[in-house]
Amino acid sequence: MEITVFAAGGTHEAGPGDLPALLADSSTRFWVDMTGPTEADITALTEVFRFHPLAIEDTHNHQQRPKVEVYESYLFIILNAITYTAVLYSHELDAFVGPNYLVTVHEQPEPLVAEAQGRVRRAPTHLAASANHLFYVLADVLVDHIFPVMERIEEASETLSDEILAEPDQAALNQLFSLKRQMAEVWRLVWVQREMLNDLTREWDITARQDDLHYYMRDVVDHLTLLADMMSVQRDTVTGLIDLYMSATSNRLNVVVNRLTVITICIGVLTVFSGFYGMNFVQTWPPFEAAWGVPLVLAFMAGVVILLLAEFRRRDWF
Amino acid sequence: MEITVFAAGGTHEAGPGDLPALLADSSTRFWVDMTGPTEADITALTEVFRFHPLAIEDTHNHQQRPKVEVYESYLFIILNAITYTAVLYSHELDAFVGPNYLVTVHEQPEPLVAEAQGRVRRAPTHLAASANHLFYVLADVLVDHIFPVMERIEEASETLSDEILAEPDQAALNQLFSLKRQMAEVWRLVWVQREMLNDLTREWDITARQDDLHYYMRDVVDHLTLLADMMSVQRDTVTGLIDLYMSATSNRLNVVVNRLTVITICIGVLTVFSGFYGMNFVQTWPPFEAAWGVPLVLAFMAGVVILLLAEFRRRDWF
Amino acid sequence: MEITVFAAGGTHEAGPGDLPALLADSSTRFWVDMTGPTEADITALTEVFRFHPLAIEDTHNHQQRPKVEVYESYLFIILNAITYTAVLYSHELDAFVGPNYLVTVHEQPEPLVAEAQGRVRRAPTHLAASANHLFYVLADVLVDHIFPVMERIEEASETLSDEILAEPDQAALNQLFSLKRQMAEVWRLVWVQREMLNDLTREWDITARQDDLHYYMRDVVDHLTLLADMMSVQRDTVTGLIDLYMSATSNRLNVVVNRLTVITICIGVLTVFSGFYGMNFVQTWPPFEAAWGVPLVLAFMAGVVILLLAEFRRRDWF
Amino acid sequence: MEITVFAAGGTHEAGPGDLPALLADSSTRFWVDMTGPTEADITALTEVFRFHPLAIEDTHNHQQRPKVEVYESYLFIILNAITYTAVLYSHELDAFVGPNYLVTVHEQPEPLVAEAQGRVRRAPTHLAASANHLFYVLADVLVDHIFPVMERIEEASETLSDEILAEPDQAALNQLFSLKRQMAEVWRLVWVQREMLNDLTREWDITARQDDLHYYMRDVVDHLTLLADMMSVQRDTVTGLIDLYMSATSNRLNVVVNRLTVITICIGVLTVFSGFYGMNFVQTWPPFEAAWGVPLVLAFMAGVVILLLAEFRRRDWF
Amino acid sequence: MEITVFAAGGTHEAGPGDLPALLADSSTRFWVDMTGPTEADITALTEVFRFHPLAIEDTHNHQQRPKVEVYESYLFIILNAITYTAVLYSHELDAFVGPNYLVTVHEQPEPLVAEAQGRVRRAPTHLAASANHLFYVLADVLVDHIFPVMERIEEASETLSDEILAEPDQAALNQLFSLKRQMAEVWRLVWVQREMLNDLTREWDITARQDDLHYYMRDVVDHLTLLADMMSVQRDTVTGLIDLYMSATSNRLNVVVNRLTVITICIGVLTVFSGFYGMNFVQTWPPFEAAWGVPLVLAFMAGVVILLLAEFRRRDWF
Repeated sequence: MEITVFAAGGTHEAGPGDLPALLADSSTRFWVDMTGPTEADITALTEVFRFHPLAIEDTHNHQQRPKVEVYESYLFIILNAITYTAVLYSHELDAFVGPNYLVTVHEQPEPLVAEAQGRVRRAPTHLAASANHLFYVLADVLVDHIFPVMERIEEASETLSDEILAEPDQAALNQLFSLKRQMAEVWRLVWVQREMLNDLTREWDITARQDDLHYYMRDVVDHLTLLADMMSVQRDTVTGLIDLYMSATSNRLNVVVNRLTVITICIGVLTVFSGFYGMNFVQTWPPFEAAWGVPLVLAFMAGVVILLLAEFRRRDWF
Repeated sequence: MEITVFAAGGTHEAGPGDLPALLADSSTRFWVDMTGPTEADITALTEVFRFHPLAIEDTHNHQQRPKVEVYESYLFIILNAITYTAVLYSHELDAFVGPNYLVTVHEQPEPLVAEAQGRVRRAPTHLAASANHLFYVLADVLVDHIFPVMERIEEASETLSDEILAEPDQAALNQLFSLKRQMAEVWRLVWVQREMLNDLTREWDITARQDDLHYYMRDVVDHLTLLADMMSVQRDTVTGLIDLYMSATSNRLNVVVNRLTVITICIGVLTVFSGFYGMNFVQTWPPFEAAWGVPLVLAFMAGVVILLLAEFRRRDWF
Repeated sequence: MEITVFAAGGTHEAGPGDLPALLADSSTRFWVDMTGPTEADITALTEVFRFHPLAIEDTHNHQQRPKVEVYESYLFIILNAITYTAVLYSHELDAFVGPNYLVTVHEQPEPLVAEAQGRVRRAPTHLAASANHLFYVLADVLVDHIFPVMERIEEASETLSDEILAEPDQAALNQLFSLKRQMAEVWRLVWVQREMLNDLTREWDITARQDDLHYYMRDVVDHLTLLADMMSVQRDTVTGLIDLYMSATSNRLNVVVNRLTVITICIGVLTVFSGFYGMNFVQTWPPFEAAWGVPLVLAFMAGVVILLLAEFRRRDWF
Repeated sequence: MEITVFAAGGTHEAGPGDLPALLADSSTRFWVDMTGPTEADITALTEVFRFHPLAIEDTHNHQQRPKVEVYESYLFIILNAITYTAVLYSHELDAFVGPNYLVTVHEQPEPLVAEAQGRVRRAPTHLAASANHLFYVLADVLVDHIFPVMERIEEASETLSDEILAEPDQAALNQLFSLKRQMAEVWRLVWVQREMLNDLTREWDITARQDDLHYYMRDVVDHLTLLADMMSVQRDTVTGLIDLYMSATSNRLNVVVNRLTVITICIGVLTVFSGFYGMNFVQTWPPFEAAWGVPLVLAFMAGVVILLLAEFRRRDWF
Repeated sequence: MEITVFAAGGTHEAGPGDLPALLADSSTRFWVDMTGPTEADITALTEVFRFHPLAIEDTHNHQQRPKVEVYESYLFIILNAITYTAVLYSHELDAFVGPNYLVTVHEQPEPLVAEAQGRVRRAPTHLAASANHLFYVLADVLVDHIFPVMERIEEASETLSDEILAEPDQAALNQLFSLKRQMAEVWRLVWVQREMLNDLTREWDITARQDDLHYYMRDVVDHLTLLADMMSVQRDTVTGLIDLYMSATSNRLNVVVNRLTVITICIGVLTVFSGFYGMNFVQTWPPFEAAWGVPLVLAFMAGVVILLLAEFRRRDWF
């Protein structure tokens, strides 16, 4: 548990023992960041903050969808941060927003929290703002980190598209399907959080109009809307690509069968020629005794095949 | 009919004759569990509880969708419990929620009821709560038992996916379609109950705010939302898999026709060769009299076929 | 025109001349059933009941969708009864619901009306109820008669499914498409009437709460919801089946082309063999003069074909 | 510009100079019908009626979707009449509805207007009604003329369906796609006007309840709903037909490849037979010297081919 | 930064230094147009207009979706202008609408602004209108410029359609998919702006009813609705075309396989003929010694092939 107090005179750290005093002092704002949470963290959540057991339970249970739960004197908010290295990975970030504090709980050390606290420190003009401001900065940092994820997904999608348009390939298609599923997942996480923060912001419009925090929150919501839009466009592109692949496969079958037809004709013509001179009729032309018979037939064969291939090439059959 | 009374001094059983007294005593809570229902049960429902004939009729008629019906002084709620052994199976669990009682009716002995009653017994701090609390525990237990169903469906889906991606197979596809239908069914049951309990909870927000039961009920609704979400993701995966299977089938046809082409060419070349030497021209090369003629032709044949196969292999035709 | 009066002392028939008196007497309820409607019926509707000309016009025009029209002192309701013998058939049943009367109009003699009147007669405890009760009984009977239709459609769908899964067959598919269209039609009729009666019931909640008719009406709506649900599930099944059929067709093409490949190879091998010994080289093996030459070649041919077929069978090519 | 005045004493024509007097006299109703509109018409619209420039502009611009625009003292309504001869054709009919007048503007002479005015003339009992009544009659006539369009589309769809089910044919499919697009267009026009008139009617419910015009308007809306429904059903049928066509095409490919297989086998067997007797072995059976050799082989060939064809026919391969 | 003042006496330019005076004088209207924006522009936005930092930030960040943001005393509106030369291109146009000013910001010099200012200058009668009028003219000009884009897209779509219906071609299909994606993009931009301006207009209905600006704004919204409609129709056409292409591809495969079948039969028949006379039986007919043997066989061969081709042509196999 790390406690950072943002007071008029600057930020300083505090210990778990200071929590009751901090809670009682409405003139300070503080941010309690918990990793795990540990036993001591849970004790603080339960006995000092007196959060609802259900909310505390949700902080261990790491497979929750984003949501806002309104309690008497605080909000419990579950956010989902998104990262994308080889594969898409979303992890939970839980927050309690009270009158003068923000409590964040996460399973692994969370770089977003450090970055957000840094931004709060560097923005001294906002010191008078409520704890909502701490939450806004956290949400903003979280949303800013989705943009690079979006870019990497777009890149992956374009690489696969180029590959597939160059040469239809089942392995690339499998990857494209998997990418499409990941896109659906990102879209869903973005959209749920967009809806959730939008609702939250609309309520803040009423309660927080004295400061202009709701303008900032609206900005976070706009970013999420933009992200959801970008993802929708990208998904449509991938869906169109899959349809194109399907039509290309159908087309290729026509090409393949045409090729088979060409080959059947050429070989068939050669077979008919040689079969013709394999007939046992005594008189034929060229006469079987002629020394120039075989070369002539060979020339015939070659000539007919060349003519046929030229014609098929003209008709675009292969 | 089993009557369990949850009184301040502990839980005890009661007989059908005690029902009128229990009903009149608003300081106790009791749970009447009926299996069947039997003739005696129906008499109790009709004459002691004076439930509406339509609601009583619905307790025999076991093919109802989840619903809440509001009557003057009680609620009639139809829940659907879900189990999945070899096949998905949903069965009805009917509940009447009155001011100080819960009546549950089910066709077969219901382990969920026993489990819920056990949880009520082990939670003595909630003894002051209303009969709504009994219903909450029942709903919570019912929802908790859907998670293993979800896991088994996910496992089944993954097994089938691996099978299909390894080798497209119509039998596995049939199973996948059947699984998809079962998923749709689970999703529907989960979603209908989610909507129903959500509406119920919103009403409770007003009437039951003195205790924090509506927080707990919201938690049950969240679980159902999560279940519906998980199912949606899984269904998308299965739908994508079916599309992949279709595209793999199309692709395989190209492969199969290419193979046919290769075979047609190889056999065709051999036929043309032997046909050529079957022509009756007297002079050819190698001369028909040469002892080395047949071996040479055989060598030719083998050589050409090997070259062709190497070329086709290079072009990935088989 | 048949007029049935449901009075405290029992039911009795009345003649067209009694209508003005009946209309004026708010203590009786009566049901006027018209088949056609005939000239006399229309005169009664126009001059005695003074219904709106547009509503009366709709009673001749038998191709109306279910609807409720609110007039000053009565409702005009168009219901659609559904039957299914060889083919789905829906027919209109028009009703005027006034303060103390129900007027039903239909083109053909309608067994539903007789059945509903019988039920009203056998339910003496409800005699005090308003004319709405007569309408409820009619609607209930109408909805009860949709369940067997649903069952017959489910049976037809299952029969076709079994047929198609056993052996893909275009004729069965055509029937399945036709069944799917009929399902859509039933679903639409059920859903429109569900919406219509639901709206009607919600209004009744306010006006008719003194008796518990709105509970009964809600029950009819529940039945329609259940029917719509059942139909949706069945439609999804049929849609899945059509997709399965399509994938099976694609698969079968692979099988068919594989079979062609097997046959091409076997015949090709035999042709190459016989072509080989048709070459005119003097020296070959077995020598052309050997009496055992032909049997040996035949044995070769048979052996190779048998080996090939075994290999193809192992590879599941046919 | 033709001005028809519907006064208590009968209808009579009026000239453009009478307009200011007619406008001022709230006891008359009049209908101004403009074709073009001409310069004089626009002057009247602008200077006498003082309609808004935007609405007047919309009367020249003939590519508008149906809409209602509410201005201070009049409504501007754009209707779309639909005709279908060889191809679907929709044309605009603009109407201004004021307190005691209806102004209609259309590009070409419009038979609908004459028909509607005739109906107004023949309905003297409604003379007391407001200008809304004139508009109702116009809308009713317009909607009545969509029914024959619907019938012709249904006929065209059924003709094409029969054609396609009898023999899949790409040209008929192209026509079906074009018909489907026209259906979508009709559906859209019908639905937009339904929504528009429905909204209009609901407002009239309040303002026009003294007369029963809103019942009539509701009837027009019902007709549009019925038309939209009929079109939806027809579209589903066509969509199902296209799917059927696709599955029939897939099926036919199986048939075609099976036929190729049958032909390959039959010709292959004949080739193997003749190749066998083309081998140069001296001893074979029947001996080469036998006069009955060729007839016997021919009989063999014919017999085997007949047996094969019988077997393939039994297996339904062609 | 270019400042145009629309005063009663005519329009004149002003310098950045005049801004504070202009802002204070509620009797003038002025339009500030910024390209870039430059450093000086941002200073003016920040220090003179005192716009919110978030809105100012959005004016540099050129990848925003259309939106309206309501601030205390001004609106911040992001529009998207659409152009289409070889490829679809949308660019942002930001506007601040205050009580007596319009500020527009864009990255590149914007011809729309010049055109809109020209229209304002030529419409002196509207000089009394509020700054909203300036914005209306801008929006109107922007929307007018989407119509030619729509026409070019329609042309491109029709050209591709003709190409594809004449001869199915994968390259044209790829272009069609790309066009479809662009259509989706245009539709989205049009629709988002339609929704946005519609909401804006509805609010103006209340605040701006003194002048008739809301009629004009409604007209802009109508144009956007029409554009969205036209685009929807066009998209349906393209989707239908893609489906047609797919079905044509399937059909063509049937044609191609039929052609292969015809060729297999013709060559097979010739092979069987020549193979027949390649058999070594001594007696056959015509006798091997007959000089007319070969011509007769050739005639036979030609005759049979001609008959077969005639029959296949009759059956439409090629």
